[in-house]
Amino acid sequence: MSVLVLGTVGLDTIKTPFGSRKDILGGSASHFSMAARHFTDVHLSAVIGEDFSPSRIDFFRKKGIGTSSLYKDKGSTFRWKGEYKGSMNCAITLNTALGVLADFKPQLTEKERGIKYIFLANTDPDIQFALLGKLRSPRLVALDSMNYWISNKRSSLLRVLQRVDIFVANEEEARSLTGEANLLKAAKSLRSFGPETILIKKGEHGSFLYSGKFMICLPAFLVEKVVDPTGAGDTFAGGFMGYLAKAGKINQEVLKKAIAYGTVAASFNVEDFGVDRTAALTAGDLRKRMALFGRMVCFDGAKNNHKSVFFA
Amino acid sequence: MSVLVLGTVGLDTIKTPFGSRKDILGGSASHFSMAARHFTDVHLSAVIGEDFSPSRIDFFRKKGIGTSSLYKDKGSTFRWKGEYKGSMNCAITLNTALGVLADFKPQLTEKERGIKYIFLANTDPDIQFALLGKLRSPRLVALDSMNYWISNKRSSLLRVLQRVDIFVANEEEARSLTGEANLLKAAKSLRSFGPETILIKKGEHGSFLYSGKFMICLPAFLVEKVVDPTGAGDTFAGGFMGYLAKAGKINQEVLKKAIAYGTVAASFNVEDFGVDRTAALTAGDLRKRMALFGRMVCFDGAKNNHKSVFFA
Repeated sequence: MSVLVLGTVGLDTIKTPFGSRKDILGGSASHFSMAARHFTDVHLSAVIGEDFSPSRIDFFRKKGIGTSSLYKDKGSTFRWKGEYKGSMNCAITLNTALGVLADFKPQLTEKERGIKYIFLANTDPDIQFALLGKLRSPRLVALDSMNYWISNKRSSLLRVLQRVDIFVANEEEARSLTGEANLLKAAKSLRSFGPETILIKKGEHGSFLYSGKFMICLPAFLVEKVVDPTGAGDTFAGGFMGYLAKAGKINQEVLKKAIAYGTVAASFNVEDFGVDRTAALTAGDLRKRMALFGRMVCFDGAKNNHKSVFFA
Repeated sequence: MSVLVLGTVGLDTIKTPFGSRKDILGGSASHFSMAARHFTDVHLSAVIGEDFSPSRIDFFRKKGIGTSSLYKDKGSTFRWKGEYKGSMNCAITLNTALGVLADFKPQLTEKERGIKYIFLANTDPDIQFALLGKLRSPRLVALDSMNYWISNKRSSLLRVLQRVDIFVANEEEARSLTGEANLLKAAKSLRSFGPETILIKKGEHGSFLYSGKFMICLPAFLVEKVVDPTGAGDTFAGGFMGYLAKAGKINQEVLKKAIAYGTVAASFNVEDFGVDRTAALTAGDLRKRMALFGRMVCFDGAKNNHKSVFFA
């Protein structure tokens, strides 16, 4: 099954303790697709400006990513400038220039309208809602948002959430949308907005998923070399959605493995600037780190026999 | 194999958003032993004052916890008064009264001197060192400390660390002792102080273990009902050490399961004040939650076949 991602394709200028880069390929849809492409066909719904080099469009195509709905508009490509300091846990935004993003109205090809697995990356909830209106019969819709929309377009966000299956939120978003300090209570409360499944991203602390029936909890895959965390959350979502689309079914085991793939994909993303590491990633790299991750988190007998010898 | 814990037995006065308690049983050794007792014999090395009621000593004995070296001294029992607010992630200490703890010199019975599994809970590193001198041939020594000793008795701490196998530290302690912001780098660096294995506690975010050869990473077991987090770290250590002592061998699989048991034990501890929940815990409670935890973190095929159908 193919995946469609609505998001941003932009140019990032980033400074971290490990160096700096100017106008490198960034944006949620770029990071998402570099992970999801390992599992299935990925189609972009995004806008770029006249200054976006054709070689960069070719770059997506060579990675097998569908660019039919990567729309080029008059004006400048979306740009973000940010910096990370110290423990690099959160970005300091120095500048945001929306450019062509300000008037973006997503269009899809006739074929893309039939795509079943949809990821609505963080953007204006009205644009997310508009995209859903163009789809014939999506099977699984996941949505990411941010505190800005929670504060400034709450009713629009609540409207689109009613049509979402999986709400991907970070800790702060979950707490601010529900007013619950306890994350598990917050996740339960988020389900009342519509999504059956809540996936909470905790950055370097991993993630957890809450459905009405079960929970999944996985740590992050720790790496020593954290060079640039930009896009880690979107890369995580790309691995997660890519695996779900490939699997073609949804249950606790499939969701768990999807989160594990997302976690591993994100751990590669942070090891270099922009999409440098994930663009170069091979299936073998992913497979090896998944095996390592499995040995780190899965304990003996966890799946089968819990009648431990230690309890009479 | 039996476990010996050097730590505190004290009286806690605690206020949380869910209520308050005065002079309830607390202290690192109390919390530790309530978890470890499910796996093996536990012996306390701690001091209490004349005001410590005999019924509380009986309480330990009825739980099968060895009190031969729970020494009663002239003076008052160690008391701690604290409060938790908001997300309850860290305690606000309102008062600490050392009492008999100030002059504590641990003594062991001849039989206890032969115990092989030792947990040195957070206390003065000189006292920790003195206890090690009384042991005939410990097989596994784990040590917990705190920032106070790192700042004020660094050389004493470094001396005892040279004789420790597993250093249990929280994130801040690991960072402050090594000067490394990246936790994985910090864990690697901590090994240079002597301990072969480093176990980093991240509270509600779980824990990870680093040895020279492998890593283990597990999330916390999330609960909705966090009433009082006091002693969660010591309860975690109790489940961890108790399982290791029972298993009688050390390898990646055993350590992983030990951390899982510690995690599950800690998740019960926070559900009520003091040791109320862990004292009432049954083997069945632990077993059920371990099974649930396994289903939350262990993904399909993680242990065995990683030649996923998704990669050619």
